[in-house]
Amino acid sequence: MTDTPDLRSASSRLETNQQWGGRFAAGPSAVMQEINASIAFDQKLWRQDIRGSLAHAAMLAKVGIISAEDERAIAEGLTTIAAEIEAGRFPFTEALEDIHMNIEARLTERIGEAGKRLHTGRSRNDQVATDFRLWVRDAIDGLDAQVVDLMRALADRAAAHAADPMPGFTHLQTAQPVTFGHHLLAYVEMLARDRGRLADCRKRLNECPLGVAALAGTSFPLDREATAAALGFDRPAANSLDAVSDRDFALEFLATAAISAMHLSRLAEEVVIWCSAPYRFIRLSDAYTTGSSIMPQKRNPDAAELVRAKTGRVTGALVGLLTVMKGLPLAYAKDTQEDKEPVFDAAGAWALSLAAMAGMVRDMTPDKARMRDFAGSGFATATDLADWLVRVLKLPFRTAHHVTGRLVAAAEAKGVDLSGLSLAEMQAEEPGITADVFSVLTVDASVASRTVYGGTAPVNVAKQAAKWQAALA
Amino acid sequence: MTDTPDLRSASSRLETNQQWGGRFAAGPSAVMQEINASIAFDQKLWRQDIRGSLAHAAMLAKVGIISAEDERAIAEGLTTIAAEIEAGRFPFTEALEDIHMNIEARLTERIGEAGKRLHTGRSRNDQVATDFRLWVRDAIDGLDAQVVDLMRALADRAAAHAADPMPGFTHLQTAQPVTFGHHLLAYVEMLARDRGRLADCRKRLNECPLGVAALAGTSFPLDREATAAALGFDRPAANSLDAVSDRDFALEFLATAAISAMHLSRLAEEVVIWCSAPYRFIRLSDAYTTGSSIMPQKRNPDAAELVRAKTGRVTGALVGLLTVMKGLPLAYAKDTQEDKEPVFDAAGAWALSLAAMAGMVRDMTPDKARMRDFAGSGFATATDLADWLVRVLKLPFRTAHHVTGRLVAAAEAKGVDLSGLSLAEMQAEEPGITADVFSVLTVDASVASRTVYGGTAPVNVAKQAAKWQAALA
Amino acid sequence: MTDTPDLRSASSRLETNQQWGGRFAAGPSAVMQEINASIAFDQKLWRQDIRGSLAHAAMLAKVGIISAEDERAIAEGLTTIAAEIEAGRFPFTEALEDIHMNIEARLTERIGEAGKRLHTGRSRNDQVATDFRLWVRDAIDGLDAQVVDLMRALADRAAAHAADPMPGFTHLQTAQPVTFGHHLLAYVEMLARDRGRLADCRKRLNECPLGVAALAGTSFPLDREATAAALGFDRPAANSLDAVSDRDFALEFLATAAISAMHLSRLAEEVVIWCSAPYRFIRLSDAYTTGSSIMPQKRNPDAAELVRAKTGRVTGALVGLLTVMKGLPLAYAKDTQEDKEPVFDAAGAWALSLAAMAGMVRDMTPDKARMRDFAGSGFATATDLADWLVRVLKLPFRTAHHVTGRLVAAAEAKGVDLSGLSLAEMQAEEPGITADVFSVLTVDASVASRTVYGGTAPVNVAKQAAKWQAALA
Amino acid sequence: MTDTPDLRSASSRLETNQQWGGRFAAGPSAVMQEINASIAFDQKLWRQDIRGSLAHAAMLAKVGIISAEDERAIAEGLTTIAAEIEAGRFPFTEALEDIHMNIEARLTERIGEAGKRLHTGRSRNDQVATDFRLWVRDAIDGLDAQVVDLMRALADRAAAHAADPMPGFTHLQTAQPVTFGHHLLAYVEMLARDRGRLADCRKRLNECPLGVAALAGTSFPLDREATAAALGFDRPAANSLDAVSDRDFALEFLATAAISAMHLSRLAEEVVIWCSAPYRFIRLSDAYTTGSSIMPQKRNPDAAELVRAKTGRVTGALVGLLTVMKGLPLAYAKDTQEDKEPVFDAAGAWALSLAAMAGMVRDMTPDKARMRDFAGSGFATATDLADWLVRVLKLPFRTAHHVTGRLVAAAEAKGVDLSGLSLAEMQAEEPGITADVFSVLTVDASVASRTVYGGTAPVNVAKQAAKWQAALA
Repeated sequence: MTDTPDLRSASSRLETNQQWGGRFAAGPSAVMQEINASIAFDQKLWRQDIRGSLAHAAMLAKVGIISAEDERAIAEGLTTIAAEIEAGRFPFTEALEDIHMNIEARLTERIGEAGKRLHTGRSRNDQVATDFRLWVRDAIDGLDAQVVDLMRALADRAAAHAADPMPGFTHLQTAQPVTFGHHLLAYVEMLARDRGRLADCRKRLNECPLGVAALAGTSFPLDREATAAALGFDRPAANSLDAVSDRDFALEFLATAAISAMHLSRLAEEVVIWCSAPYRFIRLSDAYTTGSSIMPQKRNPDAAELVRAKTGRVTGALVGLLTVMKGLPLAYAKDTQEDKEPVFDAAGAWALSLAAMAGMVRDMTPDKARMRDFAGSGFATATDLADWLVRVLKLPFRTAHHVTGRLVAAAEAKGVDLSGLSLAEMQAEEPGITADVFSVLTVDASVASRTVYGGTAPVNVAKQAAKWQAALA
Repeated sequence: MTDTPDLRSASSRLETNQQWGGRFAAGPSAVMQEINASIAFDQKLWRQDIRGSLAHAAMLAKVGIISAEDERAIAEGLTTIAAEIEAGRFPFTEALEDIHMNIEARLTERIGEAGKRLHTGRSRNDQVATDFRLWVRDAIDGLDAQVVDLMRALADRAAAHAADPMPGFTHLQTAQPVTFGHHLLAYVEMLARDRGRLADCRKRLNECPLGVAALAGTSFPLDREATAAALGFDRPAANSLDAVSDRDFALEFLATAAISAMHLSRLAEEVVIWCSAPYRFIRLSDAYTTGSSIMPQKRNPDAAELVRAKTGRVTGALVGLLTVMKGLPLAYAKDTQEDKEPVFDAAGAWALSLAAMAGMVRDMTPDKARMRDFAGSGFATATDLADWLVRVLKLPFRTAHHVTGRLVAAAEAKGVDLSGLSLAEMQAEEPGITADVFSVLTVDASVASRTVYGGTAPVNVAKQAAKWQAALA
Repeated sequence: MTDTPDLRSASSRLETNQQWGGRFAAGPSAVMQEINASIAFDQKLWRQDIRGSLAHAAMLAKVGIISAEDERAIAEGLTTIAAEIEAGRFPFTEALEDIHMNIEARLTERIGEAGKRLHTGRSRNDQVATDFRLWVRDAIDGLDAQVVDLMRALADRAAAHAADPMPGFTHLQTAQPVTFGHHLLAYVEMLARDRGRLADCRKRLNECPLGVAALAGTSFPLDREATAAALGFDRPAANSLDAVSDRDFALEFLATAAISAMHLSRLAEEVVIWCSAPYRFIRLSDAYTTGSSIMPQKRNPDAAELVRAKTGRVTGALVGLLTVMKGLPLAYAKDTQEDKEPVFDAAGAWALSLAAMAGMVRDMTPDKARMRDFAGSGFATATDLADWLVRVLKLPFRTAHHVTGRLVAAAEAKGVDLSGLSLAEMQAEEPGITADVFSVLTVDASVASRTVYGGTAPVNVAKQAAKWQAALA
Repeated sequence: MTDTPDLRSASSRLETNQQWGGRFAAGPSAVMQEINASIAFDQKLWRQDIRGSLAHAAMLAKVGIISAEDERAIAEGLTTIAAEIEAGRFPFTEALEDIHMNIEARLTERIGEAGKRLHTGRSRNDQVATDFRLWVRDAIDGLDAQVVDLMRALADRAAAHAADPMPGFTHLQTAQPVTFGHHLLAYVEMLARDRGRLADCRKRLNECPLGVAALAGTSFPLDREATAAALGFDRPAANSLDAVSDRDFALEFLATAAISAMHLSRLAEEVVIWCSAPYRFIRLSDAYTTGSSIMPQKRNPDAAELVRAKTGRVTGALVGLLTVMKGLPLAYAKDTQEDKEPVFDAAGAWALSLAAMAGMVRDMTPDKARMRDFAGSGFATATDLADWLVRVLKLPFRTAHHVTGRLVAAAEAKGVDLSGLSLAEMQAEEPGITADVFSVLTVDASVASRTVYGGTAPVNVAKQAAKWQAALA
């Protein structure tokens, strides 16, 4: 969410020692204005603020607190203001402190007395709480769509690579063969949980603070059900003190973002490793890599690295807001003004990471031959041998493992893979072994055999991928 | 969750420079054992491990992988082992590294070959993931009951104090009167959201990893539905790579704990402030305070301070595990062994905080007269006057506020509260004012008038408190 | 460090669902440009970048790698560019990705071939590491001056209130009288440690990466001592791989900021509590408070609350960068591009908090009578009585405390303070007590007696305040 | 720092739902005791507590507050108690809450009245602050020795591998050849900064709180210089309120630990990647890896993974304590009791990680041939060619890079490395190229040429390694 470069900030800020204190030379008023005013960031809430005011005015008219005429004037005024902002012609001013006062003052400037009636039965405390909830709800909806898009990209690739083997790692050591499609579907599961958390956060967030006024409720006969419904909330918030001081929705959103960003960091790490010369499991195109003028063949996975890094920013935002909220007495405290920037920043970083990762998943070209080669090396089918000993020879599991261990050692000593041992050499360790055993020692046999639900057998993977493709269509 | 003091740790650890490196003198094996073994903390999972093994063995027998006899032997062996552990007679050993190997090795020691068949189609990776999920699920259930208990304590006090006024603060400045019951119910709302998050976490957690084996699934025809059902899971986990490497459930649990601990820190902060000499809004008994030999009248709110502080430990645990998980390639990595201690520690801290806070809520004695006095001071009913001007004289909201501001200034100049101005003095600012205005300037009139849904009117508060009492009964 | 409101961001960003994905519609190039380009924030480094390039060019000429002519052209070109940026006429472009390429491309545009020689023996990796170190060093110098300014404000107030008593709290309970000056000097000690940390961070930061090139050093015979000296560094960095990948200086800066922000949050919390109606220990003027149109007498300590809250943002920045750096392989990784924004943001928040707090300390008016009253209440001189019993009657400390406890209980029962007990009533508990005891029971006697080094005796406080005033002059 | 497995904890704690609330059934006293008592963890301070008491008693006698006899009794009593604790025979009790009261009560039990005089002019607040500082100081000294040990291990390996090439990575992409020794020395630089931070933390920590009593100082004529000197502090703390409430030393220690743990996580990540099958740059012995019964050849780098993970725990501890301290009013608050466990835990995790990493560094066997092969692949000497064009043909840097880029493209098209192009093919791009160019295209020539200070030339690396070996000897 980077801004268009703004030179004013470059020349007016704290770059050098001499200038460091300059800003504050104007005295307390400059300091107070800078620390207190929020218009620089809360202008992002303008759409939500206008939506909230339109709903509030309609309700005031409905219950007879303002006239229909006044309501019409307010609605027209706000619509004009929305157009002004959209067009970049709105005269924002820091003296009016925040988006709410900027818009209300402009409204009164335009429509006169009626504008002064808009704030009846409302205070900035419930207004900002409402606006911010609306913004987070919009963000949730936008991000959910992006998560779905990434899931689709993964499911599509998984369907295409349901049967392509790659080494399955534990401890980044070759352990057992899996398929590339199976690996990608693991991330679909993670992202599905992220969607679940977003949905739960949205559901819990969806109560409307509007109408609880400053902290105690109001004596005006507001119809809070009406404003809640008009704004798409499930119900009005039930306790005025809680409604103005609650920021759980922001924290739950940030926690959801942090967990999802962590998921993305794992896939990003894998992309970086897979692109590394000794691996070369995949190749990214120029679209998501940077080269250098000197090594045009080089493809630095910058986008993946930045996705990996952005998990820091999101975790930091969560910690920041948890720290802000710690130990705050009820009800409203100005501390909560520090709620918006971390949420805006984390939402932007998460959105960008999702977009970049979806792009990379669609872009990557796996080197199937290379992945298959690594999948079959390192005695990766040793467990298949052990399972054969249990299944066919009825050895106890632990015993089968010890026999297999001795066979692996024999193969290693001989410098071959397990299938490079002769039947006689195998029988020397366990006389019951028959030639049938060789059928389980190939990579394809290995993955094909893992048919338990959740296992990597291509038939499973194809089914899961198709299930997700259908569900996400 | 402090341990009984353990002198061995006092004398064997890193207290002084000379001894600092002592432990590691024994060389690599001592270092590796200390960093690698988890039995010191994962023994907490013994009940879950035995439950999981019982379910696994029953399923193995059901699908014919082991005999009914073997299953019986395993079940009896595990039951005996559970009794041994319960009685404190189990020979835990660090050489066997973790709770899983300690129990399995003991089982084989007791029942022989059958013990070696238990691990068929299972690996430590799915086993530990299953055990830990079961533990977190148990913790969720226990903590939910504790949250309910605190909600009940608050709702009961709220019902009793539905009409007792106290100053409602914004910025810790007197703003408008509210009732003590209303204030307490704000916390009930917060805790209700905590319960919602716990329930959602439980729902998402409730998939069973058992049977995905090390990372790829298995070739044994396991009935994963059966083990999932036997262990109370909603379904088996759908992707083996995800199932062994996922720790979302722990992170979501920690995020839920961190938000709830933050809620408790807010109430704890209020308790500390309310107990402070200039406030004296409430008094805590000796049960939750400490005194000093020299000032026996002193009541330090230590329990509240510790509840406030424990939010740090819970936030730290969340950050710690997010950091651990960042950038881990699939599938299993040993890093995830660092998942348990933060969860155990945070769960314990949260449980203790909930217990202490429920106790304090039941214990506190509010000084109603004092709270009422403060509620009426500081022109706390100024908004009631402004609302009267809007409602009765039909002044626009912003105009009414300016008139009220001038009246407050006049009262301040005269050294009286708003009700101390004469009607003539009021009419000097706004000729339309009538004697009726005085009826809205008392604390009781103020709170009684806030009848909008969510407002502090005693009738609202009593209704909400009753609603919660019924819901939580 | 809020930007002048920028409407473009309001209309071009992620406010609503419909627009959420709009930005990325242009495809991979839009996503890659947004995630990869850093010019939006690293333009803050322009002064440092130009300083670094000037030093590099001078050195290249000195060792004969470029001609004196070329160096002159480069220097003139860079000076012109600096003037362009300062004047807001520089054509920044996102296509050139970062501040370094923007400036170098402009230079070549202006001076031709010579511009293409500037980057000899340098890479973006060592260049950005150098620029960022220079920025952090400048920030340290500016912040140190601000810390000093706040210390001065505190020391001046401490000198003025060296003998004015206030209640000393433990657990926010009245414990023993202290003086207001003594209390303020506690913060001077904290800030002095913050300065120490800043100085140590600066010292450790002050090694110059310039000339290690991309990661391996270079074959050009650079004089790294010369560039290091020209840029005010103590020495060149000793290992090229470390020099391009190290971000310790940013982390240490953030840790220092987080600890200092925590200090400020403590004072801010006290300001909020002291301004609260039941306390009213101090009063802030309109300069640092906000009122309301309706309650003109109200003074909400918004600035203090925001200072308290900003500790969250700084802690979040620290956590964010620690997370970014976790587990990064050597040498340069693009992840480290995420280092600048947290540092810029935390430096700005800290600077603003220091300015606001210095303003508030100078602005606050203590209510000396009220603080004295509270200082003497609650048996605050009980320890003075106990110490008298030890000193004069030679009772063991623990025994003296128990006697005092009984006397406090007697006074409480009688409804008086300790000095309200008669000598006879005292002697009933401890026959050795003489009338001399009453001399230690007043607030002034209590504080005057605490003459041990570090104690609150006015004579100590005045001396410490003077010491600090002199040291900071 | 895992404890010897303690069965009591396994059977007495929160494992299952039924038992969850069991502990608290005993009512408030059980809850209060569990939340309030610290003896379970602060017994770690016993040595420091006894040292502090010995110094305090000696000073009390010296200034005549207690008799020489009493002091002798106290000293003998404390010495006996130390022996009891050392021998595991000390009767710790939770009823006495903390280590300080446990020891003092035992002392009075043993020596009678004299024991009651020990606490004269002291309070638990300054006592615990002193003890904890002493513990952290001891930890710093122990950890510094461990950091040195790891540096030595690295420097020794660096000396041995000063000329062995490996690929230098940026973005985990092959960039330029470096030497393995050079790579290891990058970590020596990081660790040297960690030592610097430890030393600075120690220096700042080294002020003695003892004698400031509860918060205000004392009226006893204590010689605080004497106790400070006796305990190895540089001076007594200058402000009593600060001295009892300051926990900067713990935070600075944790920040230092977090940065160092991050360094270790980077090396650990590299070890994991280097051990991975496609890399196989190094091999770890069984001492620091785990195998499996079934794949005896497998070497899972568990120790490296756990070192990488432990950075989470240390960062979490830092965040936890920053959160605890946020917004605490002066002076002592019980919240600060939450300072010890994070410090103990982080110190232990860091110590263990250093020991494990030193072991792994000494243990690892690099595959020199394999590293050399990768070092020479991927056009890793392209910058050497470009530098040659600048140095010999005097091309501007940017022009030289473009020419090189074309040559790399030509080589890639031909399927050879740069040295596989014929002179004619080279001259086709740049006619000035002579056969001399081939001399810079080998791995050995490349690293040998990087002779700039800080560069990877073996001669540099050997010199740096020797410098460190001498400095650390």
